[in-house]
Amino acid sequence: MNEFQLIARLTQSLPTNASTVVGAGDDCAVLDLGLPDRWLLFKTDAIVEGIHFDATTPPDKIGHKALARCLSDFAAMAGTPTHALVTLALPTNFKVNFIEAIYDGMNTLAARHQVAVVGGETTTNPERMLISVALLGTVQKGKCPVRSSAKAGDAIFVTGELGGSRSGKHLDFEPRLAEAAWLADNFSIHAMMDISDGLAGDLRHILKASRVGAELLSDAIPASRAAKLAARAEPSARPPLLAALADGEDFELLFTVASHDAVSLFDAWKERFPELRLSCIGKITAKKGLTIRDKKGIRPLTVHGYAHFS
Amino acid sequence: MNEFQLIARLTQSLPTNASTVVGAGDDCAVLDLGLPDRWLLFKTDAIVEGIHFDATTPPDKIGHKALARCLSDFAAMAGTPTHALVTLALPTNFKVNFIEAIYDGMNTLAARHQVAVVGGETTTNPERMLISVALLGTVQKGKCPVRSSAKAGDAIFVTGELGGSRSGKHLDFEPRLAEAAWLADNFSIHAMMDISDGLAGDLRHILKASRVGAELLSDAIPASRAAKLAARAEPSARPPLLAALADGEDFELLFTVASHDAVSLFDAWKERFPELRLSCIGKITAKKGLTIRDKKGIRPLTVHGYAHFS
Repeated sequence: MNEFQLIARLTQSLPTNASTVVGAGDDCAVLDLGLPDRWLLFKTDAIVEGIHFDATTPPDKIGHKALARCLSDFAAMAGTPTHALVTLALPTNFKVNFIEAIYDGMNTLAARHQVAVVGGETTTNPERMLISVALLGTVQKGKCPVRSSAKAGDAIFVTGELGGSRSGKHLDFEPRLAEAAWLADNFSIHAMMDISDGLAGDLRHILKASRVGAELLSDAIPASRAAKLAARAEPSARPPLLAALADGEDFELLFTVASHDAVSLFDAWKERFPELRLSCIGKITAKKGLTIRDKKGIRPLTVHGYAHFS
Repeated sequence: MNEFQLIARLTQSLPTNASTVVGAGDDCAVLDLGLPDRWLLFKTDAIVEGIHFDATTPPDKIGHKALARCLSDFAAMAGTPTHALVTLALPTNFKVNFIEAIYDGMNTLAARHQVAVVGGETTTNPERMLISVALLGTVQKGKCPVRSSAKAGDAIFVTGELGGSRSGKHLDFEPRLAEAAWLADNFSIHAMMDISDGLAGDLRHILKASRVGAELLSDAIPASRAAKLAARAEPSARPPLLAALADGEDFELLFTVASHDAVSLFDAWKERFPELRLSCIGKITAKKGLTIRDKKGIRPLTVHGYAHFS
């Protein structure tokens, strides 16, 4: 049983209440606690030594990554993060300077986004460090793009470039908060999420939640320079297209808009964010399933993304 | 360096913002996100296999405890919890039935308090299970008893009985949410917290935050039946008074009120909660330091509570 199968089992019968707008299954939970024009967003994310970072990772980058992952989930909902709590589970032989440097990395990123770090907890995890961040914030009511809102005919976009994140980007990426807020303010974004487990796997989450399919264009998928360099340097490495489809931790935005909005969105984006690539990588289809089109024709895409336990 | 010294270092310079009412250092963070009459409360708490539970603990009790600890922190702030996120860090050899039973215990407690479980995360922690709960809720503005509000002359109260929790109570205690809400509704509670690391250690947190001292009455401290039985069965066990002062995981309320309110509060409590013992265990003093009075006189209390890493 992999991570997603386990989650599906556990989330079948969770207790809910009247103030829950979106529960388990999206990038953040969405809650209505009575603010006139805003919903609350609520999210947790954990990183574990030996999996998301290792003993050689600079501590400030560990702290940056721990918070940035949660901020990226807020970007996926076009939200504004406001407050974070930090859980540090530490082996008993920790070095205080190392922990302080983790906090430096986290605090620098938090301050840049006006996020207050309002406490948390330390506890013991004897064999390895684990850092979990809980994040709270708000989003404008009705402007929160959930995974279930993709429509047949939508154009599919991704920001930035994909694949090869583990060679460095996963430790110092900038969560796409400003870009997502701009998108939600200026366009009717149908579905959105951040790519954390690989494009192919994450797009499937949107397709499943929206009960649609998708056709990707092989040539349009923006493989990163890191993925291309890796493939050139090492014949056994994933080809760049496969890396772009399946590598985890890209932390780019994946979203869909009605096809009639696609060109104006693309043009406005180039004006507003000239430094950040935006790619239209395919379209949502009424027919379920995920396919990819290249010179040889259309074929089912069998590639999956990253899953814990599998 | 123990847990509390580390926390003091890390919380010296956390980023903050205008919507933070109370940041790190109390049972919950208190936030003002613009609701007219209520603040938000925000809290995380983690339990770790081998420390807070072990391989023989019934899984539903693990789930109960994971959430109940957070609920107890909400009780300490007289708050109403509304939404929880659950982080499960699991060894790869987990049994699905065991995890489902953990959720059963947690969900049953959540439903009893109208708390919606709105998602969370699964990740890998190869050597042992770790469960972290993030909890969100609200509290009436101005009715949130913080640790820093104890005043010289206040009477000090505790609910229930203390010590020996590890023989069973720590796995199935009921967080004192109803009692705390009643206290805040009907009396001017000065300082309040839940006793999680032992009465002596936790009272010191109130004394430090409020810049006061306290004198406890040895005979008034309510040692639990479990603590008394343990002392009788095993000569090397802690005497009941010491267990009541220093054992962790009591999850009872510790609070202070002006002395002129003490008698009426005590009488009203007996009427409203006849099944739950309430004890006046001493008084807050202007002179700093923690002392205890018994038949032989007054002496400084040197006992401390539980701290990780120490």
